[in-house]
Amino acid sequence: MQDVMKQTAKLGAAALLAMFLAGAPAFAEGGLAGESPWGPEDEIGTLNMMTDASRLEILQRIETGKVYDLGVDLFVGMPDCCSAAFGDPTYQMMMLHTPARGDGGKELLSHSSEAISMNTHTGTHIDTLSHFGLHGKIWNGVGADEALGVRGWSKSGADKYPSIVARGVLIDVAKAKGVDVLPASYAITVTDLKDALAKQGTTLAGGDVVLVRTGQMSLWPDKSKLSLFSQSGLGLEAAKWLAEEQKAMVLGADNLGLESFPSTNPENFAPVHSYLLAEKGVSFLELLWLEDLAKDGVHEFAFITSPLKLRGATGSPVRPIAIPVKSGS
Amino acid sequence: MQDVMKQTAKLGAAALLAMFLAGAPAFAEGGLAGESPWGPEDEIGTLNMMTDASRLEILQRIETGKVYDLGVDLFVGMPDCCSAAFGDPTYQMMMLHTPARGDGGKELLSHSSEAISMNTHTGTHIDTLSHFGLHGKIWNGVGADEALGVRGWSKSGADKYPSIVARGVLIDVAKAKGVDVLPASYAITVTDLKDALAKQGTTLAGGDVVLVRTGQMSLWPDKSKLSLFSQSGLGLEAAKWLAEEQKAMVLGADNLGLESFPSTNPENFAPVHSYLLAEKGVSFLELLWLEDLAKDGVHEFAFITSPLKLRGATGSPVRPIAIPVKSGS
Amino acid sequence: MQDVMKQTAKLGAAALLAMFLAGAPAFAEGGLAGESPWGPEDEIGTLNMMTDASRLEILQRIETGKVYDLGVDLFVGMPDCCSAAFGDPTYQMMMLHTPARGDGGKELLSHSSEAISMNTHTGTHIDTLSHFGLHGKIWNGVGADEALGVRGWSKSGADKYPSIVARGVLIDVAKAKGVDVLPASYAITVTDLKDALAKQGTTLAGGDVVLVRTGQMSLWPDKSKLSLFSQSGLGLEAAKWLAEEQKAMVLGADNLGLESFPSTNPENFAPVHSYLLAEKGVSFLELLWLEDLAKDGVHEFAFITSPLKLRGATGSPVRPIAIPVKSGS
Amino acid sequence: MQDVMKQTAKLGAAALLAMFLAGAPAFAEGGLAGESPWGPEDEIGTLNMMTDASRLEILQRIETGKVYDLGVDLFVGMPDCCSAAFGDPTYQMMMLHTPARGDGGKELLSHSSEAISMNTHTGTHIDTLSHFGLHGKIWNGVGADEALGVRGWSKSGADKYPSIVARGVLIDVAKAKGVDVLPASYAITVTDLKDALAKQGTTLAGGDVVLVRTGQMSLWPDKSKLSLFSQSGLGLEAAKWLAEEQKAMVLGADNLGLESFPSTNPENFAPVHSYLLAEKGVSFLELLWLEDLAKDGVHEFAFITSPLKLRGATGSPVRPIAIPVKSGS
Repeated sequence: MQDVMKQTAKLGAAALLAMFLAGAPAFAEGGLAGESPWGPEDEIGTLNMMTDASRLEILQRIETGKVYDLGVDLFVGMPDCCSAAFGDPTYQMMMLHTPARGDGGKELLSHSSEAISMNTHTGTHIDTLSHFGLHGKIWNGVGADEALGVRGWSKSGADKYPSIVARGVLIDVAKAKGVDVLPASYAITVTDLKDALAKQGTTLAGGDVVLVRTGQMSLWPDKSKLSLFSQSGLGLEAAKWLAEEQKAMVLGADNLGLESFPSTNPENFAPVHSYLLAEKGVSFLELLWLEDLAKDGVHEFAFITSPLKLRGATGSPVRPIAIPVKSGS
Repeated sequence: MQDVMKQTAKLGAAALLAMFLAGAPAFAEGGLAGESPWGPEDEIGTLNMMTDASRLEILQRIETGKVYDLGVDLFVGMPDCCSAAFGDPTYQMMMLHTPARGDGGKELLSHSSEAISMNTHTGTHIDTLSHFGLHGKIWNGVGADEALGVRGWSKSGADKYPSIVARGVLIDVAKAKGVDVLPASYAITVTDLKDALAKQGTTLAGGDVVLVRTGQMSLWPDKSKLSLFSQSGLGLEAAKWLAEEQKAMVLGADNLGLESFPSTNPENFAPVHSYLLAEKGVSFLELLWLEDLAKDGVHEFAFITSPLKLRGATGSPVRPIAIPVKSGS
Repeated sequence: MQDVMKQTAKLGAAALLAMFLAGAPAFAEGGLAGESPWGPEDEIGTLNMMTDASRLEILQRIETGKVYDLGVDLFVGMPDCCSAAFGDPTYQMMMLHTPARGDGGKELLSHSSEAISMNTHTGTHIDTLSHFGLHGKIWNGVGADEALGVRGWSKSGADKYPSIVARGVLIDVAKAKGVDVLPASYAITVTDLKDALAKQGTTLAGGDVVLVRTGQMSLWPDKSKLSLFSQSGLGLEAAKWLAEEQKAMVLGADNLGLESFPSTNPENFAPVHSYLLAEKGVSFLELLWLEDLAKDGVHEFAFITSPLKLRGATGSPVRPIAIPVKSGS
Repeated sequence: MQDVMKQTAKLGAAALLAMFLAGAPAFAEGGLAGESPWGPEDEIGTLNMMTDASRLEILQRIETGKVYDLGVDLFVGMPDCCSAAFGDPTYQMMMLHTPARGDGGKELLSHSSEAISMNTHTGTHIDTLSHFGLHGKIWNGVGADEALGVRGWSKSGADKYPSIVARGVLIDVAKAKGVDVLPASYAITVTDLKDALAKQGTTLAGGDVVLVRTGQMSLWPDKSKLSLFSQSGLGLEAAKWLAEEQKAMVLGADNLGLESFPSTNPENFAPVHSYLLAEKGVSFLELLWLEDLAKDGVHEFAFITSPLKLRGATGSPVRPIAIPVKSGS
């Protein structure tokens, strides 16, 4: 086992790419895709916790018109999770129409537009429940053979996702630990979360959008310092505590892939992803800009975001906002 | 003049494509790009009307947790403004990773992700002030020669746009006129807007997001019935009334390109676009889903949307939401 | 049966798109993927007929330096087989680098480059043996479950294809029948081929690249007249005669998809494709420019083309050439 | 000057990217785009040297049917000149259609196809005369303001290029110097070329396609060893000798960008490119696979390649072939 773990830790990007393109070898048994408590038709998991009442409750506590922007710019050359690691395409934008060159403004109408292309997991984005499954099945036991077409999933795609309007909580782990940025590959623990919450004076409640700060976005957009494979992030136990004990509805973090990498489980490359998405039905956000909230010490807010309804997609770029609220009733 | 107008009306998609790709011929003089009242550095025009106070005012009037979704699905084969007309690329989504085929679930982790590519003016989207200029200059006199690089504009791109949180108003022109859908190429007049507002009992206020309903989305997504070049939409006088007299901050409509097409001005292919964007600094939204608001008779709401910060882009896909509010103070 | 056939004939593009995206329903049994006479490792089928000797034989008969160009231009807005029919992406080219605008030539180096994106079956192209299979297996019994990854086939991709240097023969069916263009959906028969060959005075030989002219490229690039679903092309019996009796190595035609459409077999959308590729291992070329050969009455030539080695691809754009030769020994 | 040169040598990829995207600063004066001896309408420069007679001459000397493949595979993750350096898109291939998953072969027709996207300067490719100009003008004095549209150049694009059928010569510099690979950034000299030709016993003639071997493809496709910015290649004097004294028609090399990088001229990032393309009208090929020719000691051959007619493109992927010939008359 030790050997396998060491081997995994040493896996470079090229090997990982090869592994992904080839189809990973069969590992020992892990968990299984979960069955939804919201019924066999459910495709959105814990987002079912959101109701008109839950939305109204948080909206009515808004006490300022100040809006925090939790999204990053998307630009040619930006850091991403997966282009170097997996051969995925980089973010691109190219012009489709531009004003005429060199005509001295004789052309009356100056039309510009452009095309973009991107991995849906680029920039600030949400991972939907179809992003990771276990043994060929995603959340609620939906098999790839039934629901995966060449152009995406017919179940649990971003098009099925509601806009999210909920209480948001920032857990500033970096600040609580007194560092600018958590160490490379650091896996945040339950104790880390509890300590940070205590220091902040924040309590969690069921249905929250819980955003965890590692401080890594203070390095944005320096590609040489922001690599998926050495990022700090949630450890599995911390994720379990948030999902099962705190009943978080949605999670998020200020890093490329939520959890700490590399995985310490040689049998599972992304155990927090598969646990949350496939086993528990918990969607999450990545590459969140939490620096402004952190600087201002804002830990509780109305969290609002609307995934683009990309039919069948496993993720969507988003630009969430946070609006501070009066302390909870 | 009559001849030119007839000629323009007859212009088919191929001719328009050729015209755009070649650079349109020099037309007679029209307007000029406007100078911003918010100063020489301004890139967002009337969005400067939005303040913490204006946002708080509307947020505090929210009286329900019901959220109306104003965005459409994005999918392969969807109608768009510009692929047939201008040779622009269609919306595409293709898989980057999928669970292994035919292994009976031996693979532990089932990873799926995908890439999207699109014209930024696809689906429900916002047009930024760099989308149309006049005589080579966009809003605030910014010239393409100074500010347009091969990968987009350094001024007035979507990355400069704030999230929009404002009072929204629906003007249901189709309903007021007692039709499901306005006639092809119908140009909405000032009288139409006034009549609809009166019937609805709604009043406009400076800084509003004003959404105009033509009914065309009742035909969505039938491509054979949704063509840019025969769409009904705002007429120029109506746009002027909204921008200048009603001091609207942002406009929007449930069609592919806001204004009625074809233009009746043979010298300007898109006179409402150039008037609003280049002359007045008014951004607007297209392909809005207003059917649910219309059905429920919701005419006043908190309007919330966050353009993706696509660096240098002339537009961004968005998925706005509307939350009904108590009648204005 | 008649009913099914009528139904199929009526299938519009939208229905075909839906069918393809969904996975076609199970039809009654047809053929099976063939087993290669060149052994279990074979991935290129009849291209194995080509040898140093066969190449030298035709090269040594070259009697002129005149080169006929059999490829078409690729351009934004060009006709294609599959964008309207199946939602496939259109051909696109966009700039990555351009000389600076409006600097009066102060910039010393003026760098331009661009990106292209396309269905590999765009413009003049070759179909490889992985393009169509039967019951999940392509040529030589290779199953999709073994050999199809998310980024292409590990068997029979374009990267496995040799450059083709062989005797080429033009069969000018349109000319033999005295028409500019064969009627819509006309299926070329064995008799048509024999008649044309007789009129031309050409004989076929094993290993030939046989190019069949329908005349449709005289309509190029008028999209309104060039639709996959009404094209004339090879009938199944004619394809069988060429592959089995004449031992053609490669086929080709001047249309979007080789065979006549729509198929008269309600159980198989593209019976000539599946017969040639999956059952017989015969690759073929589409959208060939045969007009110049036809005009000059050139019916025998050295045929030379080099598929791009797109790893795992089911097709590749090509630009073949034909060089007239002395009459065969 | 020395300082500037040192500075240039130190320029990292990020700086170069920034420089390119911003538009390079105005450097001191260099050359000017050349005027074509083939007249004001010429767009292909030295390719005008090719005639029916020149083609026939070399074709008739073919003495074997053995075909050398000078092209590389194109695959996801492949090395390229420009994605890391300039933010250009990487080579991508994604599926558009695949056989149904998990249906046990019930689906009769198994349809696969895919889309590719790429910089046109990816894999083995040709650079056309529109790729680099000087002071805003390309070969024959054509200005970007007249001939560059948003979708490419109306002059000197790949669509204007003939298929190339000519005498090819390999100059194996690496072998002549007794190394596997020339040192990083080594600039090949005139003496190097003369020595290698003498050792090989090859003489050049006007109109030749001259391919220079550095040995770098023996490292293919190891991205860590194949970087544009440290590549060996042609020095400017060597390029001048080939173009002006030897009257080469087309050049080529087995590296990412023909010439040695970084440039020793602080005022010109790619002086061999601008000299050949803009001043002399000489097109060239990059990323050629010359290993097989080198191994077999084949130095003279019929060289055949057909650029794809990508309308307005500054380059095209190609897969050239070389067929050994009898010693020249």
